[in-house]
Amino acid sequence: MKNSRRHFLQNFTVSALALTVLPRLGIAAKSDLYEQPYDGPVLRVAIMGLGGYGTRVAEAMQSCKKAKLVGVISGTPSKIKDWQGKYNIPEKNCYNYENFDKIKDNPDIDAVYVITPNALHHDQVIRVAKAGKHVICEKPMAVNAKEGQEMVDACRNAKVKLLVGYRMHFEPHTLEVIRMRNAGEFGKVLFFQGLCGFKIGDPTQWRLNKQLAGGGSLMDIGIYAVNGARYMVGEDPVWVTAQETKTDHEKFKPGVDETIQFQLGFPSGVTASCLSTYSMNNLDKFFLNGEKGFAEMQPSTGYGPIKGRTHKGDLNQPVVVHQTLQMEEMSDIILNGKQPVVPVNGEEAVKDLKVMDAIYQAAKTGNKVNLKL
Amino acid sequence: MKNSRRHFLQNFTVSALALTVLPRLGIAAKSDLYEQPYDGPVLRVAIMGLGGYGTRVAEAMQSCKKAKLVGVISGTPSKIKDWQGKYNIPEKNCYNYENFDKIKDNPDIDAVYVITPNALHHDQVIRVAKAGKHVICEKPMAVNAKEGQEMVDACRNAKVKLLVGYRMHFEPHTLEVIRMRNAGEFGKVLFFQGLCGFKIGDPTQWRLNKQLAGGGSLMDIGIYAVNGARYMVGEDPVWVTAQETKTDHEKFKPGVDETIQFQLGFPSGVTASCLSTYSMNNLDKFFLNGEKGFAEMQPSTGYGPIKGRTHKGDLNQPVVVHQTLQMEEMSDIILNGKQPVVPVNGEEAVKDLKVMDAIYQAAKTGNKVNLKL
Repeated sequence: MKNSRRHFLQNFTVSALALTVLPRLGIAAKSDLYEQPYDGPVLRVAIMGLGGYGTRVAEAMQSCKKAKLVGVISGTPSKIKDWQGKYNIPEKNCYNYENFDKIKDNPDIDAVYVITPNALHHDQVIRVAKAGKHVICEKPMAVNAKEGQEMVDACRNAKVKLLVGYRMHFEPHTLEVIRMRNAGEFGKVLFFQGLCGFKIGDPTQWRLNKQLAGGGSLMDIGIYAVNGARYMVGEDPVWVTAQETKTDHEKFKPGVDETIQFQLGFPSGVTASCLSTYSMNNLDKFFLNGEKGFAEMQPSTGYGPIKGRTHKGDLNQPVVVHQTLQMEEMSDIILNGKQPVVPVNGEEAVKDLKVMDAIYQAAKTGNKVNLKL
Repeated sequence: MKNSRRHFLQNFTVSALALTVLPRLGIAAKSDLYEQPYDGPVLRVAIMGLGGYGTRVAEAMQSCKKAKLVGVISGTPSKIKDWQGKYNIPEKNCYNYENFDKIKDNPDIDAVYVITPNALHHDQVIRVAKAGKHVICEKPMAVNAKEGQEMVDACRNAKVKLLVGYRMHFEPHTLEVIRMRNAGEFGKVLFFQGLCGFKIGDPTQWRLNKQLAGGGSLMDIGIYAVNGARYMVGEDPVWVTAQETKTDHEKFKPGVDETIQFQLGFPSGVTASCLSTYSMNNLDKFFLNGEKGFAEMQPSTGYGPIKGRTHKGDLNQPVVVHQTLQMEEMSDIILNGKQPVVPVNGEEAVKDLKVMDAIYQAAKTGNKVNLKL
C-alpha cells in the first residue's frame, strides 16, 4: 500500500541500532560493524503539535534511518519557523490547523504524527485520514472509546494505517519480559501491579483542563498501567473496580482525576492492582508475578533507561532511545507491513479506552464494571 | 501489677541484644561488650498450642533473658512429653485444653501465649484471662471484631494484659521507617502498598478450614498488609474497598479466600493498595511513598531478615530473631509497663479486625465500606 510514496535514501551509513543504542551507552557509533548503508524505504513524517513531546520525537527522529521528519503542523508561526531552520523543513511541508487538510495534495509526506492535547486527537486524526495520510497518534488516542472507535473506522474507510505511540511495545526490556512470559518462564501468571505517577506542576497546563485532556492523571500517566497490565499479563481484562482520591480540589477540578486506584480481573483469574496519580513523584513501577517467577521493572515506562530484574537476575537488554526505535519500527509497520510483538494500532488503543471508560465509571459509581474488549 | 509474680534470675551473662542479633550475623556472642549480667524481672510464659509457630516461638525464647518458657498447654500428650524434655518444663506446668483453667492456681506462670487456630483464640483467651494470667495471643487475635472486643473486655475485667503477636512492631528496619516518617523524612505520606502472600500447601490444614481459620488468606497473611498499612501510614483507614478472586474452588472452599485485593483510604487522603493471597510464592513487599521520599521493604514481614531501602539508601538496621525480640519487649511491657512505639495490645488487634470485617464485607457486596476505628 502506498508504495508509490516510498522514498529511498542512499546515504545512511550508520544503522538505526547503532544510533539508537550507542549514544546512551556512551560508545561512538564509528565501528565498522555499524557502518552499513541503508537503502530501504523511509517513512516521511509530519509532526502535528510542536510542544514538549513533539520536540522530543523530532530530536529522536534525527537518529532514524527508516523515518524522517519532513513536515510540521502548528498554530504557532514562530515555532514553524524555528523547526524549519532546525530540521531543514521546506515551506511547502508546513501547515496550520486551518489548512492542514491540504496535506492530501502533498506527495512528499507519508504520515502525520498527531502530538496535540488528547481531546483534539479525534477530529485531527479523522481529518488526516480523510487527507489520505497514515496516522500516528499519541496516547491516549482519544478521550473515550466511542471517539476512539470513530477514529479507527475513519482510518479504515480512508485505507490509511492508524498507529498509536505505544513506545513501550518496542522497548527491549519490556519485550524480554513478554518473551519470558510467553516461554512460560514465570509459570502461570498470577498478578500484575502497575504504579504510575508524577507530581504535576503548572496548574494552567492543558493536562489539567478537562476540555483538552479529557480527564486527569488516568488519561496521561495511568494509561501506562492500563496498557501495561494488558501487555504484561497477555490478556484483556473482564472486570474493573476503581477508587478515586482527591486532596487538592483547586488544582484538580471536577472531571480531572488526581489519584485513581484501579483493579483489573482477567479471564484466567489473574488480577491487577494499579495506581495512577498526579501527586507522587517518579512513581514508575511494574511487577509481574507468576507461579515460578517474577519480573520487576523500575523505571518501567519512563523516557530514560528502563531497568528491571526477574527471578533469574537483572535484565540487561540494550538501552534505547524509545522514540527513535518506535519511529523505526513504525516505518516498518506502515511501509512493510511488519507485525509488532504487541499491537500498536488503533484497535489496541480502543481497548485501553474501553478500560479507562470503565475505570472512570467504576470510580464514579463504586461498582464493579464488567468488560468485553 | 502482679509484681509479686516477678521472678528474678541472676545468671544471665549475655544481653538479649547479643543473643538476638549476633547469631544471625554469624558473630560469636562472646564480646565483653555483651557480657552484662541481667538481674531484672523475667516473664514466665506458658505456650498454648505446640504446632509449627509455637515451636518457633519456643526456640526463639531460648535466647531471651527477660522471658522464659516455663509451661505448655496442648491436647497432645506426646508433644507435651517432648517439650518437657527439650525445655525442662516441670510436670506441674503442663496442661491440656480441658484443665488449663487450673493455671490460675499456678504461681509460677505469669502469662500464656495462645498459638492455636484463629477461631479458638476467643474462648481460650477469655479462659486464660479468667484464670488471672496475662495473655499474649497470636494474630489474628480473633475471627471478627465483635469477638475481639469481647476478648479485650474480658482481659480488662480480669485486670490482665492482652498483647498480640505483632512482631513487626519491634523489628528494627520497620521502626526505622516509622522513625523517618515521624521525622518528616518522607515528607507528606501519600501512598502505601502491601503485597502479602504465599502458596499454601496441604489442603487439609486448619488454615483452609473456615471453622478454624475464620477465613482464608486475609486472616493469615493479609493481616500483615492490613496492620502494615496502619503502622506504615500512621493513620487509621476511613474507607475500604475490596475484590476477591478465586481460581481453585476445590482447595478454597466457600468462606476461605484465596486472593483478595483491598484498598484503604485514610483521613489525610493517603491511599493504600494491598494484596492478600494464598496462591503466590514469597510475596512480601511494602512500599511507602511520600512527597519527599520513599521506603521499600522486601521481605517486609517474613521471619527471616527484613531488607529495605529508602530514598536515602539501604536500611542497615540489626538483623534480629523477631520472636526473641518480641518476647523480650513484651516482658518489658507486661512487667514494667513499657510503651512500645507501635501498640501491640488487644485494642490494636480490634482495629485490624474491624478493617478485615470491612474488607470481607466490601468484597462480598462490591460496595465501599466506611470505617470508624
